[in-house]
Formats: sequence, structure tokens, C-alpha cells
Amino acid sequence: MTAAFPPRDPAYAERVGASFARQTMMGTLGAAILRVAPGEVDIGLPVAPHILQQHGFVHGGAVTCLADSAAGYAALTLMEAGSGVLTVEFKINLLSPARGDRLVAEGRVTRPGRTLTVCQATVYGEAAGRRETVALLTATMMRVEGRPGIVD
Amino acid sequence: MTAAFPPRDPAYAERVGASFARQTMMGTLGAAILRVAPGEVDIGLPVAPHILQQHGFVHGGAVTCLADSAAGYAALTLMEAGSGVLTVEFKINLLSPARGDRLVAEGRVTRPGRTLTVCQATVYGEAAGRRETVALLTATMMRVEGRPGIVD
Amino acid sequence: MTAAFPPRDPAYAERVGASFARQTMMGTLGAAILRVAPGEVDIGLPVAPHILQQHGFVHGGAVTCLADSAAGYAALTLMEAGSGVLTVEFKINLLSPARGDRLVAEGRVTRPGRTLTVCQATVYGEAAGRRETVALLTATMMRVEGRPGIVD
Amino acid sequence: MTAAFPPRDPAYAERVGASFARQTMMGTLGAAILRVAPGEVDIGLPVAPHILQQHGFVHGGAVTCLADSAAGYAALTLMEAGSGVLTVEFKINLLSPARGDRLVAEGRVTRPGRTLTVCQATVYGEAAGRRETVALLTATMMRVEGRPGIVD
Repeated sequence: MTAAFPPRDPAYAERVGASFARQTMMGTLGAAILRVAPGEVDIGLPVAPHILQQHGFVHGGAVTCLADSAAGYAALTLMEAGSGVLTVEFKINLLSPARGDRLVAEGRVTRPGRTLTVCQATVYGEAAGRRETVALLTATMMRVEGRPGIVD
Repeated sequence: MTAAFPPRDPAYAERVGASFARQTMMGTLGAAILRVAPGEVDIGLPVAPHILQQHGFVHGGAVTCLADSAAGYAALTLMEAGSGVLTVEFKINLLSPARGDRLVAEGRVTRPGRTLTVCQATVYGEAAGRRETVALLTATMMRVEGRPGIVD
Repeated sequence: MTAAFPPRDPAYAERVGASFARQTMMGTLGAAILRVAPGEVDIGLPVAPHILQQHGFVHGGAVTCLADSAAGYAALTLMEAGSGVLTVEFKINLLSPARGDRLVAEGRVTRPGRTLTVCQATVYGEAAGRRETVALLTATMMRVEGRPGIVD
Repeated sequence: MTAAFPPRDPAYAERVGASFARQTMMGTLGAAILRVAPGEVDIGLPVAPHILQQHGFVHGGAVTCLADSAAGYAALTLMEAGSGVLTVEFKINLLSPARGDRLVAEGRVTRPGRTLTVCQATVYGEAAGRRETVALLTATMMRVEGRPGIVD
């Protein structure tokens, strides 16, 4: 599903890190970047009491935050300096209750494009060395240029 | 798009309120229920500094949390007592940057079913009496029964 | 859900008709345009023995063909002369078995944009004056310009 | 993304073949089953003049027919005798123009369930030994039992 894509900006990892740091939502959740490579970004989130839904699992919206950011930043790794990335739309299937010690979202570029990039993200729940697939996301990301305030 | 559906549990509004109160994620965001009617739930969220993405708009994941909960609880209003509601999957289109003083997600049941219920949610950004459509979500919700811990 | 959008090309209805006529797939199904207005296209399809799935209903893929074309041409009605329209992605919920005498897909522009246009389509099954909602589609359409062979 | 799933009905391949043969839509397109294995179904479709869109590529709806059937029959391979399979919903991203000598849709079960099965399908365009990814579909399939006429 993943291929090696050449980055257009050698400072792609720093850009992703700096942009991620501006997402206050990630800090509110408690999420952190685990890995950045061309076309690939992994984000981790410790399961914690402030991000749950009514049955005690992690809220589907929190799972989605993670998957969306992992997919969006995977797209950003392949964009020229000066570009900004926006999520156009996505679909997510919630396969299993989101639980464990930690969630990990692995965002991958499926098909990069000049304007639109298609990405997929898989979210896993990890506990005691075991991994369960929690969710699958497919997203369309858009590169914008010259739009004031939209630079990553 | 919405029709009047008869609720199967007269205490549907209390059930929605009690279940929502257990979603710690909603408290973390700062969201509150605005309105509950058969097949309809509206949720409001003041725009605040802790839920933003990198360009200063509300994070798409937070918008999605709101829309998912509004859609899921709209489905719950029509379910029998003893049922629990789970999100199977959804798709969301982010139409405009999520900004304003407050976001409002209006969840509506499109087609109720014994097992699966299709819902839609529209998210608006409100500021100074003006309303802008921010996102459209279509979701498949599942009613579960007799699964330990999954009751709403 | 629909608003009145001003067309940029006064010959929009002729363009839609001419482009539709080139879709051999529509002829193979037996589909015909019923109505064209700015941001709105309706397509009809008589239920017939050559487009069914295994239980005797119209195939979900045929329903999707109809909805996709209705949504795409709704987008095209608002585009400048010289543009071409491509489907980027869509999601469809199949709500009821597709049956009746005729299917009608009503495509509507939800949010027009310079590059991307979000559309929705509802597909109905009609029989003896009765209408049942069969499917709901949400699509992202892209305007392309200057790409050889992609003009509508 | 695919795992080996044990079939519950040893005659799964015959069931898929018999059900596929009843889909007149597949015959109208010119599609044929290429391969059936537990959780996996591949369908081929020669590119032909009667299934095109307005720019001369295969119609997105035809691509979707193929992907939907491949995904649905992949789900059916894992279901008990006496079950029927229905498509609840799907999302498809059209990544490249659908062209070549032949399209091949590879349907795979991602997560089987008692009631709902999540599947993915990838559609390729093949020409002169070259393969290009044309589309990615993610679908929710439903197993029904005891519903008159809905048996596969």
C-alpha cells in the first residue's frame, strides 16, 4: 500500500514537527509524533480518562483526530516548501473498540498529486505487546499555496 | 431530509443526556447538548484555544467528534431502552474552515433501522448572528443489545 | 440543501446534454436526463432485466452510475466553458433495495468551488406514483482545465 | 491488509459463482470472475466501447460496479450457507483514469463479522503487462438471514 516517494523539501520532518506543535488539539488529547518519513507519519496517543466515549473506550472522534493528523502530515512530507495542507474529506471505519495502553495511527500516502493527495491511515490499539486494528481511514488532502495563513 | 420518527423509549432525552455526560471527550472539548428531539440532536461547542489545528481553525477531528456524537445520539433517540449505539463508519466533507464563536452540529436520522441507522450531521460555524456550513457527515450507526457494558 | 447558484456558462444545459450523450455507459444502462438547472441535474433509469444484481433488484453499481453522473453533471452546470469535470471520490449509502418502474437520481451542488465542488445525489425508486429513497451519495468533483481530452 | 479467514461453507466458491451468474449487470458490462478464495474475489472486465464516460475512459460507475461486486463476494466467501449479502455503503476514490485492455478488481475482506463485514477492493487498469491503480473502495457488507429472496 505504501511506496517510497521522494520528498520535495529536504526539511520535511522539521516542517511536520513544527506544524504538529501548533495543533493545540493534539496537545489536548496528549498525542505525539512517533515517526516521520517521506509519505509516512505515525502518531501515538496514550489512552487516558479525558478522551473517552460513554462505554469507556476512546471516543471515535479522538481516534479520528489521530488518523486525520497522521494522514494529513503524511501528505505534507511530500509537498513543496511554502505549501499548506488541508483535509478535504475522509471516511473512517471503526472496526473494534479503541482501547489498550496506547493508540497508534499510521498515516501513509497512497497516491500523491499536484493538488490532491490520497492517504490512508490505520489506527491500532496496543496493550502488553499486542496490537489490534481499531480503525481504517481514507482521506483526500489538498495542497494550497498562496493562501494567507495556510502554510505548513 | 428529516422526518418525524416515533421514539420507542419515552425517556429518550434523559438517556441521551446521561450517555453524553459519560463522554469525557465532550467535556474535554467543552461541548454541550443544545437540543434533543426524536431523531434529532444538536450539540454546541465554543471555539477555544485548546482545540485548534495548525492554521488557527478548529481541528477537523474536533469538528468530527461533534458531528459523530450528534449523529450517534440522534440515532439513540429512536432506540429501545436497553440498547447501545456504536458508530460503524462515517464520511465527512470539510467544506469551510471551522471558525466563529461557536460550532453547532445538528445530527439527524435519515433512515432508522432495526440494526443499522443512517444519520447525517451538518456542522455550522456561528459568529455575530451569521452561520456558515463547516462540514457534512453521513454515518452508519449500529444498535447493539445484550453486549456487556454497551448500554446507553 | 440546495441553493440557487449562478451558472458561468449560459450554454450549461447544452454542455451537459452533449457530454451525457458521450457517456456510452448511460446508453448501456438505458438512462436519460430528465432535468438540468444551475447546480441541479436529474437522471432517470427504467428498471430493466439487464441491470440487476443477484436478488432481482437493480445492481448497486448501476444505482451508483446514475448518482455519480447526476452529481457530476450538477457540478458541471456551474463551471466555465472549457472546463472538464472529474469525480475525485464519493460515498454512497444504499438505504433500500433499488426497485420500482423507474429510478431517478437527483444530483445537487452542495458547495461549489474553484477547483473542488461538493455534490449530493439522492436516488429514488418510483412505482405507481410512490417514491422510495434508495440511496444517498456525497461526492467530491474536480474541475480540470487545459488537460487534453478532458473538456465537457 | 488481507489475512487468511476460514470459510464456514465449504461450497463457498460455487455459491459465489452461482450468485455472480445471476447478476445480469455483470453480464451487461462483460465482467467475469477470475479467482475465488476465502475472503478474496477477483473480477475482470475487458475495456469496451459500451461502458465509457464522456472522455473515453471507463465510467466511474462501471469501475464501482466491479469493485462493489468483488468486495461483496469476498464477504460472501466467509458466510454460512443460507446467508445473503447486501452492500450497506461504500466509499471509492478514483485515483487514475480507468483505461487499458482490462480492469481487474481485487476484493478483500478486511474484518469479517457476524453481521457486518468490512471489505476493501482495489481496481487496476492493465495494458501490455503494465498495471496502474485506478480506484480504492472501502465497503460495509451486511449478512442477512431469513429474509425472503435474499439468499446467495
